[in-house]
Amino acid sequence: MASTPQYLTGDKAALNAFIDKFDTFLFDCDGVLWSGDHLFDGVPETLELLRSRGKRTIFVTNNSTKSRQEYVKKLNGLGIPSDVEDVFGSAYSSAVYISRILKLPPGKNKVFVIGEAGVETELASEGVPFIGGTDDKFRRDITPADFQGIADGSTLDPEVGAVLCGLDFHINYLKLAHGLHYLRRGARFLATNTDSTLPMHHDLFLGAGSVMIPLANASGQTPLELGKPSQAMMDAVEGKFQLDRSRTCMIGDRLNTDIKFGVEGKLGGTLHVQTGVDKKEAWQKPDAVAVPSYYVDQLSDLRQAV
Amino acid sequence: MASTPQYLTGDKAALNAFIDKFDTFLFDCDGVLWSGDHLFDGVPETLELLRSRGKRTIFVTNNSTKSRQEYVKKLNGLGIPSDVEDVFGSAYSSAVYISRILKLPPGKNKVFVIGEAGVETELASEGVPFIGGTDDKFRRDITPADFQGIADGSTLDPEVGAVLCGLDFHINYLKLAHGLHYLRRGARFLATNTDSTLPMHHDLFLGAGSVMIPLANASGQTPLELGKPSQAMMDAVEGKFQLDRSRTCMIGDRLNTDIKFGVEGKLGGTLHVQTGVDKKEAWQKPDAVAVPSYYVDQLSDLRQAV
Repeated sequence: MASTPQYLTGDKAALNAFIDKFDTFLFDCDGVLWSGDHLFDGVPETLELLRSRGKRTIFVTNNSTKSRQEYVKKLNGLGIPSDVEDVFGSAYSSAVYISRILKLPPGKNKVFVIGEAGVETELASEGVPFIGGTDDKFRRDITPADFQGIADGSTLDPEVGAVLCGLDFHINYLKLAHGLHYLRRGARFLATNTDSTLPMHHDLFLGAGSVMIPLANASGQTPLELGKPSQAMMDAVEGKFQLDRSRTCMIGDRLNTDIKFGVEGKLGGTLHVQTGVDKKEAWQKPDAVAVPSYYVDQLSDLRQAV
Repeated sequence: MASTPQYLTGDKAALNAFIDKFDTFLFDCDGVLWSGDHLFDGVPETLELLRSRGKRTIFVTNNSTKSRQEYVKKLNGLGIPSDVEDVFGSAYSSAVYISRILKLPPGKNKVFVIGEAGVETELASEGVPFIGGTDDKFRRDITPADFQGIADGSTLDPEVGAVLCGLDFHINYLKLAHGLHYLRRGARFLATNTDSTLPMHHDLFLGAGSVMIPLANASGQTPLELGKPSQAMMDAVEGKFQLDRSRTCMIGDRLNTDIKFGVEGKLGGTLHVQTGVDKKEAWQKPDAVAVPSYYVDQLSDLRQAV
């Protein structure tokens, strides 16, 4: 039974008790630090405050379009000094899962990618062979010859053993048709994450889950999720950063990814911000998918601890 | 409680009794007459047999990529003489629904189309204004300026009052983002049909339902379906052709569209063929979505009546 979340905004004593309770803060990015390219006010100063008190800050993001290196560039560009070791993304999590856990057999070890460069960079960093992705050969209209070649298998790569779906701003019927037919021939179905929407420009666009769902719908299969709230990602984060879960807090805007990720991972706490997809009304419902232990209006309210 | 379907293949007496029981046969096309561009053996002769016995043959298809005129061209080209009055497609059904039932108010009466030329032709034939569809302006990659313009509404058409989704072989993120944002601003959500797959080249590709589902997933809304098994389509077919439902039989390969369409429409009978998406194992399950009254291996088995 989840107890009522504690509201921290405007309560200096409670904020200090909250900060003191944890050594490590895991941050979701979109909807918490920024919306698209719009950084929320006071975010760099909030990160600086936590770090000045000796806290470790780790960015755990389901956005698979960027590699860790690209995330660091974005963080630094927005005034949040970081390095690649501070970032754990769903593209990286997926690459680690494929190379170290899934271990596809030789001759069947290629990944057909639906996604952007971030997925490709992380697969390459783990030595996983892949096709699709940003390759121009798949960024075009489907032709009658494609339908024929896909149906008879002559234009499919027999070495593909997995289909990995992330957010793809260049999604098209040709890529989906290839993905569907690899799945129909027995490839494993993986998703970097299944967020239905993506916060950008103070609004919502289609997320990775909405790019993947045509394949789930047409194949009748459900992908294995490798981003939040998958505990495969939590295990990987814990292993890499040697966390004490009881002294770790997950901060996020989404109940079904961020807060569920922290609750199911039995972290010491979860903090919900009101600047992203889900508002507090979502966990006030009796059938809420997850309930946080704390909430604030916005991340920078933590600065009221000073 | 549905009784056990009667198997007609190889049973001359049963076949003749079946044919005599009906005045009108409604045919699904993909998976019954053909798979993609591959016509099944004996189909023109089967149609000719039924017509020679005074039966009316009507093609009722969920494929929205073709207008009725294009369907007639395809039918004639494959050796099945037909005219536009013999065809009832989901694109036409959608256009009729929008113009005669939905009646969008002036100033909010444009339709944003995700789909191919068939939908456009039928909307135009009913005088319904539309944007999107095959327009080259929407057949390109999304840009940062698009994200901004969609989020702030400056590049959206304020007169759009409905989003109509059909099968679109040129689906892309830009179209989906527009569709999502019209829905978020209150547009009605319509689908020509929601078939998850499309039979082509003896295989399955992604159907209209798998092109539409990103919008349903990202918006949290469910579209009003205007193709089979929607009874809006049955009512329109009945009205147009002045059918006696008790003497009408629906012939199809899919339980959740064709057979359900006939059963819920209280037609005199439904005939299931084994040449498309669903095989007889599907209605043999206790939780089958619909059970036909008759079945054959393939449509041309009806010729065994001679």
